[in-house]
Parts: sequence; structure tokens; C-alpha cells
Amino acid sequence: MPDQSLLTQLIEALRALPGVGPKSAQRMAFYLLQRDRAAGRELAAVMAEAMTRIGRCERCRTLTEQPVCDICANPRRDPALLCIVEQPADLVAIEQATDYRGLYFVLGGRLSPLDGIGPAELELERLATRLHDGVVREAILAVSSTIEGNATALYIEELARGAALRLTRIAHGVPLGGELEYVDGGTLAHAFAGRRVL
Amino acid sequence: MPDQSLLTQLIEALRALPGVGPKSAQRMAFYLLQRDRAAGRELAAVMAEAMTRIGRCERCRTLTEQPVCDICANPRRDPALLCIVEQPADLVAIEQATDYRGLYFVLGGRLSPLDGIGPAELELERLATRLHDGVVREAILAVSSTIEGNATALYIEELARGAALRLTRIAHGVPLGGELEYVDGGTLAHAFAGRRVL
Repeated sequence: MPDQSLLTQLIEALRALPGVGPKSAQRMAFYLLQRDRAAGRELAAVMAEAMTRIGRCERCRTLTEQPVCDICANPRRDPALLCIVEQPADLVAIEQATDYRGLYFVLGGRLSPLDGIGPAELELERLATRLHDGVVREAILAVSSTIEGNATALYIEELARGAALRLTRIAHGVPLGGELEYVDGGTLAHAFAGRRVL
Repeated sequence: MPDQSLLTQLIEALRALPGVGPKSAQRMAFYLLQRDRAAGRELAAVMAEAMTRIGRCERCRTLTEQPVCDICANPRRDPALLCIVEQPADLVAIEQATDYRGLYFVLGGRLSPLDGIGPAELELERLATRLHDGVVREAILAVSSTIEGNATALYIEELARGAALRLTRIAHGVPLGGELEYVDGGTLAHAFAGRRVL
């Protein structure tokens, strides 16, 4: 883009960020240039380094700049527990909200043949090896309860067959503090069918 | 931040952008890393270059990587017209919405003694030179109609005293398509007082 001014290029480049339209991109560019160039330079440097150096953990497949991520490398995490999530963001959410002290396996998506995502793309063979290694005692499925998420869960259930472990799935139901009248019908029906004795 | 992972650093750095909170920053970081590293690298490169190379136009003070911006350097723009705006973003808005073909002067703010912004910070002396150079025939004040914007306009009116030009100010009133009942009282009173004969 040799004809475009650097300012226009910056605004265009900022639009690559999710949720950023032309107006926000312009606002961001002007803000950085007029108020906080140091932060802009820092962001540029960290982003360049992150895009190049961050890869996937050899053990759990989450995003990390090290060969093995901090969680997998932590000897105080319980290797008998393995939580299976779709995305690195799900791992972060569980780390922030719960006191789970086991390990993870990040699928990187869910089975979706129409989008060309099959067992190979999710590295399910690698997961199968983990499930059958004799170390894992409980595998917790924390995949979404969409059609594809359920298909993925079912597939993993098959994979775990014969392994000496308990396979569990996180509970789906009415969110805490959720008003029944505003919860969607599918969730409510699921919560109703999954009722537990007090 | 040697203890923080590169991912955490990236999320922190993204929060420097205006309107980006912790959740959006995390979403942006994961999106770039998982879906579009090329765009992330491009953004990092353009941002680093922009933060270093973009300065202010010698003539109008807008943001540009050249000594003189494209508008000031364009011989087809009318030097007899000078539009005075507060910010580079205001210049962009006028360029996009109007067919104005004159030049600009970007103040970089408005007079606000409490914030330490006086005539020197806005380079009003430089503006005075422009107003009295005999080339400008009409100076259009396109500053906001806030208390500080009005004070700035008044100050510039004083500066223009004795110059052989017409000083005008853009119209303030009810926005096009604006319903009277939803317009704030100040705007409505201003529009009423500024009514024109049809």
C-alpha cells in the first residue's frame, strides 16, 4: 500500500481486530498517536513477538511460547485429572473461575465434518494416548453442549472405552442467578431432566 | 515483566487501546493467535512504524508522516479558505462529510486553563500568523460548542481582529433527522435563537 498514508494503513490494520469497525479503528489510532505513543510502541513490540514466538504446548496443545506450558510443567498439578476443553480461552475461564488443580487437553475446536474438522484436526489420537496412559483417573469433558460439542463428547466417550478412568461431563443447566422466564427452552428442558435429589 | 507469559503480556498491552477491557483484550489476543497471525504481524509492523514516524504537519499541525500533509501540499486546495478544528479526527470527519476544498489548521485541543492548555499549547501564535498573511480570505471556526470551545472561538476572534478576512463559525442546531423532543434543551434553544428567514 505505497499510496496510502501511514495513518490510513494503521486504521486499516486495526480493523483486523475482532469487534473493531472503521470508527473504533480511527479512534484507536488517534488515541495512540496523540495520547500514548509509548503504549502503542509497547503493543507493537509485544504483538510482533507473540505472533512469532507463541506456539502450542507439546502436552496439552494450549497456546504458549514455551515447549510445555506452565500448567503442564507444574509438578503441583494433579496428573490424574484431565479436563478436555475446546479452546485455550476455555482453559483460561476454568482457571479463573474454579479451583481445578488437574491438567488440560485443548482440542482446538469441535468435530465439524462440514468445516473439514475431523478427529485428525483435533489431534484426538494424541488425546486417546493420554486417556489410556494409566495416569489419568478422571477425564472431565468441558466441551460446549452444541450439536457439534455433543458429537465431540460422544466421540471422546468412544475413545475412552476400555481405559481405566471415570469420564465425566460438566453440568449444563440454568445459570446461577438466571431467571427461569428468560432462560431458553432447551436449557430449561435440560435442567429439568437433569434434576437432582436434595 | 519477565514473569508473565507472552500471552498475558499481549492481553495487557491490548488494553491500552481505548474501549478495550480485559474480556475484549483476551478475545482479540486469541483471535489473532488462532485465526490470523499474518494480520497480527502486519498490525504490529504498521503500528511500530506509525508510532515512530508520524509527526505533525509543519503547516496545519495534523498528524502525518511527511513534513507537510497531503492536504497542505495539494496545489488544488484553495489557500484562501482556512478551517480551524480541534483535532485531526475533526479534519477527517469534515473531509469525509463535506466537499470543502480549502486548507485546515488543527489546534490539537481547546483552551482549558485548568488542564494547563493555554494559547501556547494550541500554537495560536502560528495561527495568528496564518490569519494575517493576506492569503486567507475566510477562516471557518469548526470548534465544538462547549464552554471551552466557545472560549477558544472567542480568543481566535480576537486574534483575527484587523485581518482582512471573514471569520465564520459552523452552524450549531438540531441534527438532520433529529426529533425535536429528543434534542437536548441547550441545542434546541440555540437552534431557536439562530433561526433563519426562508
